[in-house]
Amino acid sequence: MTEDLLVALDQYLAAGIHIGTQVKTVTMEPYIYRVRQDGLYVLDIRKFDERIRVASRMLAREDPSSIAVVGARQYAQKPIQTFSTIIGATPLAGRFIPGTFTNPSLPQYTEPSIVFITDPRADAQAVREGAKIRVPVVALVDTDNSLQYIDLAIPCNNKGRKSLSLTYWLLARQVLRERGQLTPDAEFPFKVEDFEATLRRVEA
Amino acid sequence: MTEDLLVALDQYLAAGIHIGTQVKTVTMEPYIYRVRQDGLYVLDIRKFDERIRVASRMLAREDPSSIAVVGARQYAQKPIQTFSTIIGATPLAGRFIPGTFTNPSLPQYTEPSIVFITDPRADAQAVREGAKIRVPVVALVDTDNSLQYIDLAIPCNNKGRKSLSLTYWLLARQVLRERGQLTPDAEFPFKVEDFEATLRRVEA
Repeated sequence: MTEDLLVALDQYLAAGIHIGTQVKTVTMEPYIYRVRQDGLYVLDIRKFDERIRVASRMLAREDPSSIAVVGARQYAQKPIQTFSTIIGATPLAGRFIPGTFTNPSLPQYTEPSIVFITDPRADAQAVREGAKIRVPVVALVDTDNSLQYIDLAIPCNNKGRKSLSLTYWLLARQVLRERGQLTPDAEFPFKVEDFEATLRRVEA
Repeated sequence: MTEDLLVALDQYLAAGIHIGTQVKTVTMEPYIYRVRQDGLYVLDIRKFDERIRVASRMLAREDPSSIAVVGARQYAQKPIQTFSTIIGATPLAGRFIPGTFTNPSLPQYTEPSIVFITDPRADAQAVREGAKIRVPVVALVDTDNSLQYIDLAIPCNNKGRKSLSLTYWLLARQVLRERGQLTPDAEFPFKVEDFEATLRRVEA
C-alpha cells in the first residue's frame, strides 16, 4: 500500500494526519477508518491521499492569484503563507473580515474563483461567503466538521501543527506537479519544516 | 429565490430533478430537502443548482477530450452523446467494458483526466476504475447512492428521462459559459429536447 501514497505511510502517521477528534458528524462517516478505545475517531489516510491529488488537480487549473487560501487558526498561518507564495495563491490567513468575498466596497475585497478552507468551523464565515458567490469550496475537514457548503472535502487532522504543515507541503508539491512545473521524480525544493508554524513566539 | 437559479424553479420541478427515491443513504442526508408522506425522499434543488456550477467549472478547465462521460442506463445515452458532442468530451454511453480506464491492451482503453458518472450504482465499475487511476470522479447522485469514491457529488434524480436531459443540457450550457465560449446573456443554441431520449424505439 505504501508505495502508492504521495509520501510514506510512516510520514503520514508521524504527522498525525489521521488523528481525528472524539466527535463524529454523520457526513464524515465515509472518511472514518476506525474508532479507538478511548473514543477517538481515526481518519482514513488513503482517502486523504486521494483527495490531495484531486484538490491539487483542481487548484492547478485555476488562475493562481484567484485561489483564496483561508485559515484563522494560529497553526494555519505559516503553512498558508508558504503554500500561497509557492503556488502564487492569495493568502487569507488570520481573521477573515466579513464581506471579503461579497462586499466590493471593502478594501480587502477579493473575487476568488476557488476558495480553500483550513477548518470549516474556524473559517465558517469564509465558507458561507464562498457558497454565496458560488465558487468551488475545497476544505480540510476533520471528524467533527460539517460538510455543508463544502464541495470537495479533504479528510484530515486540520488542527495539528505538523499535520497542517505536511498537508500544505503536499498540496504545494502536487499543484506544481499537476501544472507541469515539477516533474514527478524531481525533488521539491522546500521542506515540510518550511511550512511549519513555530511552537510558540520567542521574544526578540 | 428563483432568479438565482440557472433556470426557473418551475422548470426544475417539471423535469423532476428533485424527485429522489424511497431509499436514503447516510451520506446523502445533507442533500435531502424533505421526506414526502409516501416515504419518497426529495432532493434540495438549490444544492443541485450550485453543484452544477461547480462541476461545470471543473470540467471547463480540463482538456475536453480527456473528460470521460459514463452512463449505462438507457435514458442516459442521448443526453451523454449530445453533451459530449457539444463540449468535446469522450462519451462512454452504454455498457462500460471493464478495464477501459486501467487496461492499456484493450482497444477501448482511454486515459481520462476526469470521469463524469451518471449513476454510481449502474456505473459502479467506471467509478472504481476512476478511483483506481486517481482522477477526479464527479457523479450525479440520487438519494439511494453511496458516495464512496465520488469526489464531487451533484444531487439529483439520475434515473428520469426528463431529469437527465435537463441536467446534461444545463451542464453543457454552463461549461461553455465557464470557458467563455458563451456569454451569460447569449442564447444557448440547443434545446433540452436535443438531449432527451425518445420514450421508446419506433420501428422504421
